[in-house]
Amino acid sequence: MDFAEYFPMWDKLGPGQRERLKGAAFRRRVSGGTVLHNGSADCLGFLLLRSGQLRAYILSPEGREITVYRLFEMDVCLFSASCMMRNIQFDIVIEAEKDTELWIIPPEVYKVLMEESAPLANYTNDIMSSRFSEVMWLIEQIMWKSFDKRLAAFLLQESRLEGSEKLAITHEKISRHMGTAREVVTRMLRYFQSEGMVRLARGGIELTDVKSLGRLAEA
Amino acid sequence: MDFAEYFPMWDKLGPGQRERLKGAAFRRRVSGGTVLHNGSADCLGFLLLRSGQLRAYILSPEGREITVYRLFEMDVCLFSASCMMRNIQFDIVIEAEKDTELWIIPPEVYKVLMEESAPLANYTNDIMSSRFSEVMWLIEQIMWKSFDKRLAAFLLQESRLEGSEKLAITHEKISRHMGTAREVVTRMLRYFQSEGMVRLARGGIELTDVKSLGRLAEA
Repeated sequence: MDFAEYFPMWDKLGPGQRERLKGAAFRRRVSGGTVLHNGSADCLGFLLLRSGQLRAYILSPEGREITVYRLFEMDVCLFSASCMMRNIQFDIVIEAEKDTELWIIPPEVYKVLMEESAPLANYTNDIMSSRFSEVMWLIEQIMWKSFDKRLAAFLLQESRLEGSEKLAITHEKISRHMGTAREVVTRMLRYFQSEGMVRLARGGIELTDVKSLGRLAEA
Repeated sequence: MDFAEYFPMWDKLGPGQRERLKGAAFRRRVSGGTVLHNGSADCLGFLLLRSGQLRAYILSPEGREITVYRLFEMDVCLFSASCMMRNIQFDIVIEAEKDTELWIIPPEVYKVLMEESAPLANYTNDIMSSRFSEVMWLIEQIMWKSFDKRLAAFLLQESRLEGSEKLAITHEKISRHMGTAREVVTRMLRYFQSEGMVRLARGGIELTDVKSLGRLAEA
């Protein structure tokens, strides 16, 4: 995808602004597992995903994790430039879940352009609204949905992302996505297995009844 | 407080823009309990709180509630104008918790000005960042804090807001703030009473050991 396509309001920027935005951007490849942004101490910049997958999560004081949202090809990442936004008072970690190719726009360049360009500021606002909606969705899931339903939905999402019904994911990793203890994940997966919905194997989970998982996730 | 004081970037608006913003605003008084905004069907406008208190909450399909944030004198309310923001995909309810005086700026006026003024767009961004931070704080509370600590923190906050250690609040109302069942609130309050931290009476709760509640809330 072309650089300009990440910015639906590209035509509303002046030629000089476009030049500054594009001129400051640089490309980077990172391998899966790389932490790109680690709380408020970091401020890498505004990221455009050319390929790959990012995960944004928060950490408890005891080191527990919960995935807040994920970003895919064509998405942009705003909170890796959190230093350029006043009033951001939380620490988020952003890591590459897969090998990922990015354009990075340094925060100081983006900030200056955002301050002078209403279209760019409103675009930034749109991105924040999207993330806000994802976070509100997460609160609703945590508050109103029982763990079996959340887990079924998570397995189906993973299956869609990987394009396979055989998932190479550990119970530990699932627990870090969902903010629960590993034992809770293992217990529920065993129950799913006893109901014929999954088959558990060394280092992986096979979805054997996608329909029933779907019914459970949407119940 | 003067209208302009709600906008720290007032001087960066043109005279015509200031005129349009102020000219479109109107004042309203609402009594405690009034619902000002009820999900995405509503779009009252951008609100400036002259006095009083608002509560933003979400509702489960079964009618359970959880308070997402509260707004006080001098605060502004953005999500009551959610129709003017793309990508807002959640339903929030905003109600007056007390008798409240407001300025209301119609969303269509605010939106046009936000689209032409970078300072106003960035100010809107700052407000969204603040709410985002409050929502992330809520997720951390729900995920990592046990209910006894959250309840102790809630009682202390109420006490500060009311300026009293005698709270005229029902268990039912607390459960709607915290997103839990009423029975869970009652059980925990009885435990607090047995520990000498509160005294339960008809229609109210008296905080009898603020220090211990504080230690618990911060543990």
